[in-house]
Formats: sequence, structure tokens, C-alpha cells
Amino acid sequence: MNEGELSTTAALTYEKLRDRYRAFRDDRDWDRFQDPKSVILALVGEVGELAELFQWVPADEAIARFSDPGRRQRAGEEMADVLLYLTSLADSLGIDLMEAAHQKLDAAHVRFPIDQVKGLAPEHD
Amino acid sequence: MNEGELSTTAALTYEKLRDRYRAFRDDRDWDRFQDPKSVILALVGEVGELAELFQWVPADEAIARFSDPGRRQRAGEEMADVLLYLTSLADSLGIDLMEAAHQKLDAAHVRFPIDQVKGLAPEHD
Amino acid sequence: MNEGELSTTAALTYEKLRDRYRAFRDDRDWDRFQDPKSVILALVGEVGELAELFQWVPADEAIARFSDPGRRQRAGEEMADVLLYLTSLADSLGIDLMEAAHQKLDAAHVRFPIDQVKGLAPEHD
Amino acid sequence: MNEGELSTTAALTYEKLRDRYRAFRDDRDWDRFQDPKSVILALVGEVGELAELFQWVPADEAIARFSDPGRRQRAGEEMADVLLYLTSLADSLGIDLMEAAHQKLDAAHVRFPIDQVKGLAPEHD
Repeated sequence: MNEGELSTTAALTYEKLRDRYRAFRDDRDWDRFQDPKSVILALVGEVGELAELFQWVPADEAIARFSDPGRRQRAGEEMADVLLYLTSLADSLGIDLMEAAHQKLDAAHVRFPIDQVKGLAPEHD
Repeated sequence: MNEGELSTTAALTYEKLRDRYRAFRDDRDWDRFQDPKSVILALVGEVGELAELFQWVPADEAIARFSDPGRRQRAGEEMADVLLYLTSLADSLGIDLMEAAHQKLDAAHVRFPIDQVKGLAPEHD
Repeated sequence: MNEGELSTTAALTYEKLRDRYRAFRDDRDWDRFQDPKSVILALVGEVGELAELFQWVPADEAIARFSDPGRRQRAGEEMADVLLYLTSLADSLGIDLMEAAHQKLDAAHVRFPIDQVKGLAPEHD
Repeated sequence: MNEGELSTTAALTYEKLRDRYRAFRDDRDWDRFQDPKSVILALVGEVGELAELFQWVPADEAIARFSDPGRRQRAGEEMADVLLYLTSLADSLGIDLMEAAHQKLDAAHVRFPIDQVKGLAPEHD
């Protein structure tokens, strides 16, 4: 198995993804291109590709349309790209992304008590 | 500890995040708002908030500026929101996001051999 | 009337918008912040704010909901911000945005003949 | 000259662009796909393509790199796509986009007096 490649028996954790991406990037000397603003633009590019897959699909047919294996695969690839750039950005900034997400969800539990918001449209920040 | 809240001793894995988010959403009957197109728009909103944090920061000062704990916290929160919506979307579509990201990285190793791309600007899809 | 302010009797053309924005920016020495990547991130931020207005609105109610004057005003403001940053970027790059849009529409007429695409979902690039 | 095509002698105004896009869309029965949320996703897709053109370019070389006619043409096309979808959205919502942008710029003059903000980084909303 090559350096940096996936061991199929290893657990596919977030920490492993972060470490693998970092090695992938650094092995190619791509860290010097990946300043935060550039990585955010790359992330925007991938979000755009994800959006394009869904843009003309009727809202209430989206789940059914993407039950097709090929479409689901394609959507998964674009979402993977978004996650990889998000991982890269977090790593560059010294942010523990998974901990941050768990904490944000903790805060959301406090901010949106079930008995006050149940059935209402979600708020945004 | 309330239903759905974080156990501080539990491992902060992606699988746990996905399950916690699903419970959070379903407890509030928010699943009916979260069709894929709506969730992508929500994700775009969070990416926009992330972009706003960095937009006027000089590219070569971004890492240093975000070493400030308050700024890093804020960036982590926006990135957490992006991850949460990405997780929600993946869950709705039956996509294993972490597996998809590991596989995309596998493919990237094949597609961008070190000896061919080292030091060149990264390609995009 | 102050330098750079709108004359209410002048035609509200694109060219005037571009010239007014350039003067607004340069009067504040903001041109040095507005390199293309920064402006695209700012544009992404405004697109995110636009997306947030619509994210949880049912797709088939969006037009009706935004017939409310306050909501329409708000949507118009976010769209205005997108246009202003797009205008700024075009100006920096020496691109005639309005000519480019007319030309893109010319090309779309050729690429999507009515008798071949009528009623089918629009393609994307 | 075909219905809906560009007269090369006509002024390339925004109003003409809006009217031409509306005719282009309606001639193809594409209005039924173009609900606001779908159009915003399409706009996000085009913003993503624009971002991809710039993502790995060093910030201080962007202007020079895009002085190349081919690159400038490509950037202009992506920006044109953003403007076309923005125009379509505004038209659907009954918003006069050009007037909204001029008014937003009026408000920006009041909000950011030259003597208070000159040389400081631009604020965002």
C-alpha cells in the first residue's frame, strides 16, 4: 500500500480524513496554494457543483430522483469535495471541526427548545 | 441529561453528529422543511457567513488574524454550520458522507500522482 | 447634491451604477481591499444572505411570500449587493458586464433552439 | 433577425437584457422550472464557476492574470451567467434590480461617510 493511501480495514473517521488530506496536500506542495481565502473559494466552487445537480429538480422530487445510484454517487462526490475543503480549512486554522459541530449542536439545543419551536420553520442565524 | 444532548464523555464522531442532528431535527418536526434544495440554500447561507469573515483580510494575513481565539471561535461556528447542513443533506439522501470523502481522496491519489503534480497549482474538477 | 450621490433625475443605467460604485469605492480608498478574490468572497456573502431569505420557504409559495413589500424590499437589497460586487469585479477586470450578458444570451439562443428544448428542463454548463 | 435575438445596433441596456431573458425563458417554457429557489441555486452554480477561475491564483496576481483575453472572456461569461440569473430572479419577484442597486448605493453613501471610513477595511452588513 502506498504512503497516504487508504487502508480499507481502517475506520473511516474524521480524524483520519483530516490527516490523510493533510498528507495528500503536503506531499504535493499544495499547502502554499491553500491559504484560507483560496480554500473558501474552492469550497464555493464545490458547493456550486452540488447546487447545479439539484437546481431544476422539483423540490418534492429531489429525494426520489437522487435514489438513483448514479445520481447519488455524483451528489456524494460533490459533498465529499465540500467536506474535504472544509477539513483543509479547519486544519489550517487549528480548528477541531468535529468538536465545533458538536458544540454548535449543543448550543442549538439550548437556543431552540422543542416545546417552543416544534413545527415552526427553522430560524437562521 | 436531556434526550439528544451531548454526553461529554462520548467520542465526538461523525456518526454521532449525524445521529444527533437527525434527532434534533426530527424532535422539532423540521424534517419537513429540510428538503434537499432548502438545505443546500441553508448551506449556501452558512458558506456566505464564513466568506464574510475572511473577505477583506489580506490573503497572507488570514492565518495570523484567525489565531485570535475569538475570531477562530467564530470561524469554527460558521464551519460547524456548514458541516451540520452537509450532514443533514447526506443523511436525507442516504449518503455516507465520511465514506464518500475517503473515497474521493482515494481517487485524488490516483488522479494526481505526486511526481506529476508536485508544486503545480491544484487542478479543479 | 454631494459628490457621488444620486441625481434622482438621472437615468438609472448600468453604466451610471458602475461609475458611481467606482467613485464610492475610490473615495474611501477601498480599492486596495477589493482585489478580485476578496470581491468574489464578498459576493458569496451577499448570495448567502439572499439564499437565507428563501431557504425555508416552500418552493411553490416563494413568489407569493415575496409579494409582501417588506420582504420584496429586503430581497431587492440583497440582490442589489450581489450586483454591486459583480459590477465592481467587472470594472476591476476591464469587463463590460452588460455587453457580456447580452453576448451570453446571444450564445444561448444558438445553443438552445426553441424547437429542440421547449418544455425540457434547462441545461447547465 | 429572429424573434428575441440581439439587434447589434440596439443599446445594450439592463432593461433590454431583462426583456430579452424573459422572452428567451418563456419561449422555451422554462419559466415553470425557474421558481426563485431554483434560480438562486442556479446562480450559486455560476458563482461557483466564477470562484473556480480564481481560487488558486495568488491574490496580488489576479488582475494581471485576467488581463489575458481568453481568461477575461471566460470570467466575463461566468459573470454574465450570474447577472442573467439575478435578472431572472428580480423579474420574477417584480423587483427593479437596477433601481434597487442605485438605492443601495445611495444608502451606502449615508452609511459610510468618507471622512469616517476612508482607508479602513469596508464593513459588511
